Amino acid sequence: MIAVLKRGTTPKQKQHLIHWLKQMNLDVHVSDGEHVSVLGLVGDTSRVDMELLSSLEIVESVKRVSEPFKQANRKFHPEDTVITVGNVKLGGGHFAMIAGPCSVESENQIIEVANAVKAAGADILRGGAFKPRTSPYAFQGLKDEGIRLLVEAKKTTGLPIITEIMTTRSLDLFEDVDIIQVGARNMQNFDLLQELGKINKPILLKRGLANTLQELLMSAEYVMSQGNDQVILCERGIRTYETYTRNTLDLSAVPVLHQLTHLPVVIDPSHATGKSSLVPSMACAAAACGADGIMVEVHNNPSCALCDGAQSLTPEQFDILNQRIQKVREAVK
Amino acid sequence: MIAVLKRGTTPKQKQHLIHWLKQMNLDVHVSDGEHVSVLGLVGDTSRVDMELLSSLEIVESVKRVSEPFKQANRKFHPEDTVITVGNVKLGGGHFAMIAGPCSVESENQIIEVANAVKAAGADILRGGAFKPRTSPYAFQGLKDEGIRLLVEAKKTTGLPIITEIMTTRSLDLFEDVDIIQVGARNMQNFDLLQELGKINKPILLKRGLANTLQELLMSAEYVMSQGNDQVILCERGIRTYETYTRNTLDLSAVPVLHQLTHLPVVIDPSHATGKSSLVPSMACAAAACGADGIMVEVHNNPSCALCDGAQSLTPEQFDILNQRIQKVREAVK
Amino acid sequence: MIAVLKRGTTPKQKQHLIHWLKQMNLDVHVSDGEHVSVLGLVGDTSRVDMELLSSLEIVESVKRVSEPFKQANRKFHPEDTVITVGNVKLGGGHFAMIAGPCSVESENQIIEVANAVKAAGADILRGGAFKPRTSPYAFQGLKDEGIRLLVEAKKTTGLPIITEIMTTRSLDLFEDVDIIQVGARNMQNFDLLQELGKINKPILLKRGLANTLQELLMSAEYVMSQGNDQVILCERGIRTYETYTRNTLDLSAVPVLHQLTHLPVVIDPSHATGKSSLVPSMACAAAACGADGIMVEVHNNPSCALCDGAQSLTPEQFDILNQRIQKVREAVK
Amino acid sequence: MIAVLKRGTTPKQKQHLIHWLKQMNLDVHVSDGEHVSVLGLVGDTSRVDMELLSSLEIVESVKRVSEPFKQANRKFHPEDTVITVGNVKLGGGHFAMIAGPCSVESENQIIEVANAVKAAGADILRGGAFKPRTSPYAFQGLKDEGIRLLVEAKKTTGLPIITEIMTTRSLDLFEDVDIIQVGARNMQNFDLLQELGKINKPILLKRGLANTLQELLMSAEYVMSQGNDQVILCERGIRTYETYTRNTLDLSAVPVLHQLTHLPVVIDPSHATGKSSLVPSMACAAAACGADGIMVEVHNNPSCALCDGAQSLTPEQFDILNQRIQKVREAVK
Repeated sequence: MIAVLKRGTTPKQKQHLIHWLKQMNLDVHVSDGEHVSVLGLVGDTSRVDMELLSSLEIVESVKRVSEPFKQANRKFHPEDTVITVGNVKLGGGHFAMIAGPCSVESENQIIEVANAVKAAGADILRGGAFKPRTSPYAFQGLKDEGIRLLVEAKKTTGLPIITEIMTTRSLDLFEDVDIIQVGARNMQNFDLLQELGKINKPILLKRGLANTLQELLMSAEYVMSQGNDQVILCERGIRTYETYTRNTLDLSAVPVLHQLTHLPVVIDPSHATGKSSLVPSMACAAAACGADGIMVEVHNNPSCALCDGAQSLTPEQFDILNQRIQKVREAVK
Repeated sequence: MIAVLKRGTTPKQKQHLIHWLKQMNLDVHVSDGEHVSVLGLVGDTSRVDMELLSSLEIVESVKRVSEPFKQANRKFHPEDTVITVGNVKLGGGHFAMIAGPCSVESENQIIEVANAVKAAGADILRGGAFKPRTSPYAFQGLKDEGIRLLVEAKKTTGLPIITEIMTTRSLDLFEDVDIIQVGARNMQNFDLLQELGKINKPILLKRGLANTLQELLMSAEYVMSQGNDQVILCERGIRTYETYTRNTLDLSAVPVLHQLTHLPVVIDPSHATGKSSLVPSMACAAAACGADGIMVEVHNNPSCALCDGAQSLTPEQFDILNQRIQKVREAVK
Repeated sequence: MIAVLKRGTTPKQKQHLIHWLKQMNLDVHVSDGEHVSVLGLVGDTSRVDMELLSSLEIVESVKRVSEPFKQANRKFHPEDTVITVGNVKLGGGHFAMIAGPCSVESENQIIEVANAVKAAGADILRGGAFKPRTSPYAFQGLKDEGIRLLVEAKKTTGLPIITEIMTTRSLDLFEDVDIIQVGARNMQNFDLLQELGKINKPILLKRGLANTLQELLMSAEYVMSQGNDQVILCERGIRTYETYTRNTLDLSAVPVLHQLTHLPVVIDPSHATGKSSLVPSMACAAAACGADGIMVEVHNNPSCALCDGAQSLTPEQFDILNQRIQKVREAVK
Repeated sequence: MIAVLKRGTTPKQKQHLIHWLKQMNLDVHVSDGEHVSVLGLVGDTSRVDMELLSSLEIVESVKRVSEPFKQANRKFHPEDTVITVGNVKLGGGHFAMIAGPCSVESENQIIEVANAVKAAGADILRGGAFKPRTSPYAFQGLKDEGIRLLVEAKKTTGLPIITEIMTTRSLDLFEDVDIIQVGARNMQNFDLLQELGKINKPILLKRGLANTLQELLMSAEYVMSQGNDQVILCERGIRTYETYTRNTLDLSAVPVLHQLTHLPVVIDPSHATGKSSLVPSMACAAAACGADGIMVEVHNNPSCALCDGAQSLTPEQFDILNQRIQKVREAVK
């Protein structure tokens, strides 16, 4: 960590600061320039409060030169993490297609979609049981019944299942769930992250609406620091000024995260774009830049003409997409 | 609610959609133009899933013409909500200064600051016991011990206290806390909001880093829909591309929220700017545009020369600021 | 165009507004609901000032139901525009690789790079002669001499050339330039756009740092409305809160623009990411989602070890990338 | 300037880089830490291309420790700049109210508004003659005729006038204009800025939609570096994800700019909020945090009931606002 002191800092102030830093078990290297002094802090700087340090009167700026995440850091763990659920592997060259409806609505629905996506090549079944909704008056999901139906679909198809958790209080219900999803709104629900760090199950962690990639990695670190190193990162669009798409899919997250961390990276083009007509293009783009998996919404309802344009693909569209994605993966090998 | 249908929608598709909407107990008024048809939906549209409706193939766009929040809505509750804690009132013309340290660090510290801010005119004492931190390795606060010390400071000074909650699991510890704060990162932790809706205590709800004012009001609605109508809204800066300040303080939130809701609005210039040198200016600006209260960080440590420039004001700076704010409030009466 | 009137609008106010709208040669269809009235405006609404209309006291909101761009609109011009320069075609299924150095620095440099990128399969040579720089003290390019050297490189290699214009005052210098680039900072320099609309040469128009896709299309419309319909759109990253990459590449712009307009879309991953290590991944992703071309920075300087990590690729890296991109294009055909 | 080198940089690479930097007449101080080396660059670093340096393979990050703006920098010019037009002063404790219609529409209109705002205490008359519009089909202003009418209004009232320029080609028309405005979309039209640097007239420079405060200062530097040091900075709202207001007014720009520069700072609450009902609150807030002037839209049209809610204030509303602002300025003295 590097701290640049302001022009005009007195020697006494500088000594105060150095003394304070040394009390934190840091070595301090001083480099005095014409206009500024630079302090190089060596040691375990992950506990140093950068914001406090930056805000001191005499400090011009502070810069980390090593990343504050450790267990998620590729520097200390060069090999890719591979997540295994049932017969499916994700990460380290293994690619998984995660598909299913936005919400679990009924036994018929989830079994039908599960069969359809399995036939079309999906590896993992998704479906929302607990639904985070902006409005308290909107449908909040089938909750425990939704999870029960997902587990039925898993028994029927053999597909591993993934679904979202919203509070530690419902953790018991997730026993037969294969991957627990933490939604964008809970990416910095640190209490939830820490509890999920104590269990032995993969966690799919979605990037928050306006969180940086470093903050995403720090949230992964919250899980990993408690002992659970099975974390999958998921980019699902960030909030920008552009309103044509629901969010702005930040695909550069894929190569950036692959440089910074050994954890696998999944892309969710359905939530990112909010429009099914954009999903196939962005899914192919995700595969082309090296994503370890793609999570898309697929609905059934072949009879419901109304739903054709929703965020969800039909099973037929998913089937075609799946084939194109395999070709794209071949192309960039 | 208004739904505009795309050019080329067939009469059959239109009938399907109208049938589906009527099943939700809505009246549907059709207005056919040269290029488009417009459906006017009348009835309780707060349960209609706007995103689903928008995403239908035949729907060009959907627009709410009434706000989706009800209990927080000034239209249905024209008089300002006034929050009362101890002898302090906030809202409806009553203004409160909330001051105290970022974190509770020790008994000496919190008692000293509490006495200092009381002497300088503070109405409510703030202090963090549970601290949400980006890094799992950073100091997370004194937790239950921190709350105990805050309660001590309250006994000593008579000032009501406010502190942040991070999980429903620690709710019991907040019995003697006067106002419970929900931090920006938990603004859409809907499970937490609903639990806080079941207690009888004011909730200060901070706007999330990248949340709209409407989303803030919907989160207030989560609390209110469970029975607790004592909600204080707090703007504390939003995330933008500008990096000179920690966040961008969106002061227009004050007049906008006063138009939309009867709930009081508090500004936190300390977290918004991250620099103590900017706090007094922005606090005065907040008072000038009608804020119902201001929450600022004040530290003690008269001996620690290093801390002078931190995000926190000294008690002396707070004293001067308090006097200026009273003058500004007079000026805009 | 649809205008929703506020609850409480008096009949007299409504009549005033309708009268005013009819004066603009619009037909006005009124649809009165329980709480609101909706006015449907039919006719040439492209001249209606939406912001003025929205800001009227009695107007709740205004919504366009037809896009405000006409000549760029795919609805009125369904076939893809194909741009032809020399033997190169771009758009309508034709894909072009545009490559070259950030700045033209010397005759040796530009000739060397031009030969290298031609050998590696580039279709068009890029190179900056006039450089927009944030600082007045930074290198502003070789200007007219830079253009002269580019023209030399064109003669040597036969590659068409593209370079940026910054003011109408230098338009004469661009006679031998094949495609004129308008940079992100000038996307809404309307005077420049209109002048470029009067010449007969393709214009590559870069999206501004914080401009919406609709604003980009409206700027294309500025050029086209003057008679020049050879416009190429270019996404080069938008400004967000994320700082790891220089900008955030919004790849969903490719399928969105292809839906809205017949104009070709090019992606510039070099400026978007600012890091050469991210360029190949994002270039492949661009090809996978249907971009009509890619513009990348390539430098020479095989001897300069320092430059290896710059935003620019080496000719060897470009060669490999070019081959991968052809495979990706095959895969998504 | 500080450059942090990556772990793993070889001594040879480091020597290459140091050699390259020394060729730019910089002194290089090397400080080797356990994991990283830090280079301190001393000398005139304003010409160093930070982006190029940052993008080198061996460079972890680069940080300026001195601001890249010089003539605008308060460090080198501690006294406030005071702008004088006619009898009006702005900056250095002098406050100016700038008021007038969005566009000049007719002689009657501009004379009427000019008289009204003068009577209500305005110091300077604003009015658009050249109007930058997103759409080529929208009203672009009365252009040279608009300027002629403004000059008439100046003769009638004695108020100095300010109006926007869009291209150097119309510079001759601005001879009798007192302050030339550069709009947000032209903030980085460097050719225009440089030409305005060669004249002897105050320039009001608006912050671009998504530009940082440092970029605003660098654009001021473009003007000043050519010899014209009469620059007024104007904050008019930045683009964020919030859609309730047209833009997000960043009022912290006022104290931040006052710390960084000696140039005066004006706030435009009309364009920032887009709603007249929010203008008085935000204008008072601007005065409370130290703005040197406020620019608001005022229209006449007492007979036109429709216009009452537009972005513009009525002369009566402006009169009341003006009085409140004087009181706020007293309060924060």
